[in-house]
Order: sequence, then structure tokens, then C-alpha cells
Amino acid sequence: MKTDRDAGEIEIKPYKRDFLHSYSCGVFPTCELALNKPEILKKIIVTNNSLGNGGVAKLRETAEKLCVPFVIDDKAMARIYPKENVYAAGVFTKRFENPAKNRNHVVLVNPSDMGNLGTIMRTMAAFEIFDLALITPCCDVYNPKTVRASMGAVFRLRISQFDSFDGYVEHLKKSGDSIPDREFFPFMLDGRPVEEVNFEAGKAATLILGNEAAGLPESFLGVGKPVRIMHADTVDSLNLPVAAAIGIYKLRKNNY
Amino acid sequence: MKTDRDAGEIEIKPYKRDFLHSYSCGVFPTCELALNKPEILKKIIVTNNSLGNGGVAKLRETAEKLCVPFVIDDKAMARIYPKENVYAAGVFTKRFENPAKNRNHVVLVNPSDMGNLGTIMRTMAAFEIFDLALITPCCDVYNPKTVRASMGAVFRLRISQFDSFDGYVEHLKKSGDSIPDREFFPFMLDGRPVEEVNFEAGKAATLILGNEAAGLPESFLGVGKPVRIMHADTVDSLNLPVAAAIGIYKLRKNNY
Repeated sequence: MKTDRDAGEIEIKPYKRDFLHSYSCGVFPTCELALNKPEILKKIIVTNNSLGNGGVAKLRETAEKLCVPFVIDDKAMARIYPKENVYAAGVFTKRFENPAKNRNHVVLVNPSDMGNLGTIMRTMAAFEIFDLALITPCCDVYNPKTVRASMGAVFRLRISQFDSFDGYVEHLKKSGDSIPDREFFPFMLDGRPVEEVNFEAGKAATLILGNEAAGLPESFLGVGKPVRIMHADTVDSLNLPVAAAIGIYKLRKNNY
Repeated sequence: MKTDRDAGEIEIKPYKRDFLHSYSCGVFPTCELALNKPEILKKIIVTNNSLGNGGVAKLRETAEKLCVPFVIDDKAMARIYPKENVYAAGVFTKRFENPAKNRNHVVLVNPSDMGNLGTIMRTMAAFEIFDLALITPCCDVYNPKTVRASMGAVFRLRISQFDSFDGYVEHLKKSGDSIPDREFFPFMLDGRPVEEVNFEAGKAATLILGNEAAGLPESFLGVGKPVRIMHADTVDSLNLPVAAAIGIYKLRKNNY
């Protein structure tokens, strides 16, 4: 892994997963970054044709306030986000934070699609579940594509990564989480209907969802209370962000 | 628009929107096509390396039963779906069907993203809402990418297109739909919380969702009962397929 550099001195190259920094592409995600994680924001890049944009003007003010370099650099932008025209991008240091104890968590086991991962983070932020634990191998949560799919919601969350689900539980124990009170809900086809589950107010819950193609391994039948979202057999399964959204929405409605 | 041809005589070219036919790419979507809309299936194409695949063997049987050509043609496959390796594809005639009267409908006003549209169709099929009306301009519901995002669920639905929402309502009137009993729910930020709405059992509902970026025009405040899905202001809005999924799930739970 490359060593990180000081603010502003990061060389702007096409993103690679082993970088210690990444890019938030788009005015809105970059505003989210500046607002929610100012301490990891290292630089703001905007394009020449963006200068009339209200959001970009706000970003310039923010950069001044935070003493972060604000540069106009069309070529750098083309390097970091060649696919679409975006007005602004933030350069930020990637950060992983442990999940907070006694709060609702989402655990994603081996998610593979960055668009899906971004969408799930957006839904989590919308329904105020702020802790996401990823079980590796998984797609890159800080790839610019994931960040953009999240519309910057990634900067509202605490993101952690563990080698295994056991590693996540181990961390909970160490953190002083009230594990006997925590409810674990693996979403799997052999679970009982989530419609019959009452998420209890005041009890922290962990929603666990598997990979897009494979779902959760059978071993999760032994974890907590396996649940499934009932649907007709007209489709094989629900789309992962859709399943996550229904689970998160239901938890939020019952649990607050 | 090009004229259509007889079964099997359709030339296999890279897809364009003005074709009268399209392609289902992938074994599962092609099985869905053969199972649910055999009358529009014109040809099955498979790749040389697919012949040990169980799903492909089933498709061969199906092709025989339906008297549909079954051809091994790697070059044709590469032309119609260059991005990913797929074993099988179906060539089918596009079909639009009017929404059924007195059934639950989803109306999407100007959706622009094919992945989103496919995902919404997959959710509709899962929760047994079989009528989708698209208000143009909108993205291409029969583009191979949309079909694949739907995992073939598009073949379980009746898909219609109207120039305007009024055109959709006009059709309902002509079809003998009990419009006074039908409930129209436009999803918009100024609506009342959908959490307070009880979808009435036995009453047909129309869920109406707007474009990804723009939402629904204000004029929809005058249509039926505008609703919104309550979420924190941590995010600007929900992802469109997520909003649709929550609406559809709630309708299904209350309405059956």
C-alpha cells in the first residue's frame, strides 16, 4: 500500500483500490463530504465551466473555511472521473471506523456490486442507521463509483471491514456492546417471514445480508433469527438494495 | 420503424431502440421469456461453451416444444451482448399491452435509467403487481440492458406506454376501469406520510413515481392522494427503485 501524503500534496491519478485516498465526484457528494467528514477532505477540484454553479460557489467558501486547497483543474477531473461530466470533486483520505456499540447495524457479507453498495448506504442514511460493517472480500466502498452511487451518504456512516462475521462479533464483544440484547437478523430464503417479526423498540438490531448472487451461507441459519421477505415465486429473489431497503424500513418503523 | 419479419428470419444485429424485436440475454431471463411469453419468442441463441449448462439444455427442449429455432452462434451473441459473457439469449418481438382494469398498477413518469426500470419490474413481479404504465419520454423498457436488470421479470408484466398521464387515465375510462374506486398515489415530497395511508383491501391502486432527478411535476399534487415516504433529511431523496419497493411492499401488505 502506498503511503499517504499531506493535504494537497496527493497526486491526482486515476483511482486504484490500494490508494489511501479517493475522490468524491459531483457537487452534491462533495458537499456531503465537506459537511460530514471535513477532517478527511484534502482538496477540492472543480472544472472551468463550473464557476457559475451555486453549489460550487458554496464549496469554494467551505474550502476557505476549512483551509483546504481549492483548484480549477479540468485535466485532473478528466483523469479521476472520465465517464461523466462533473463540476466538482473532493480528494479525501479513506477512513474506516468501528461500528458504534448498542446501535442498529447493517452487515453486508461479500457484496460485489458498487452501485448496489452505494444505494444501500443511501438508504441507511435516509433511515438513520449509521453503522455499516462489510465482510471481505467485498467490492470497494470508497471507489468513486460507490461514493457517487451513495450520493455522498457514505460520509454520514461509520464504515468498518472485517475478515469474517465472527470478526465483527468479536469486535462487538470488545467494544462493550450489550450482545445478549442485540438481535441478529440474517436475511435468507430459509428464514421465517420478516412480516411476523417485531423489531423491539430499544433493542439494537443487526441486519445481515449476503452476496447478490449467492446470498448468505447456510451457516447463518445458526445466527440469531433468520428472516426472509415474503414474495411470490414469480422471481427468484429480490434485488439486494431492494431487500435491504425493505428490511431497513421495517426496522426503522418498529424500532424507534 | 423497420418492419418485423417472420420467426427465425430476424437478422441478429446490435440492438437499436427502433427495432421491433429485442434480446433477452442470459439463461434465466430467456427461461422467463419462454415460460411467460412463448408467443413472442422467435429464436434462441446459445454459445458453444454453454452446451453443458443445465439451463441451456432446458432451453433446447423448450425450443423444440415451441417449434422455435435453436442455434449455436457465438458471433451473434457477441454482437447482441458484447459486455458480458452470457450463455443464452432469446430473440423476441416487443409487445405493449394495455393495463388490466381494476388491478393494481405502477405508473412511472419519465424514468431515465434502464437499470432502475429493470429493478422496479423485478420488484413488481415479486409482489404481484403486473401492470406497468410508462409515461414517455422514458428509457427503453425492452433494451437488453433493461430486460437483464429485470432478470426477465419484464415478461411477467403487461407493459404499456402513454404520451401523458392523462392518456393513461383516458385509457382507464375506455377500458371500463372503476375509476371512482381506484386510488391514485403520486409519490412526492409534498405528499402526506405514506405511513398514515391504509391501502384499502379490494380497492385497486395506482402508484405513481417520477423521474430519478426531477421527481413528479407539481401538477400531480392535484391527482388522488399524494404521499411521501418519511425519511431523515440526511439524504436528499431515496433511490427510485428503493422508493418504489417500499411503496409496492406496503401496498401489497395492506391490499391483499
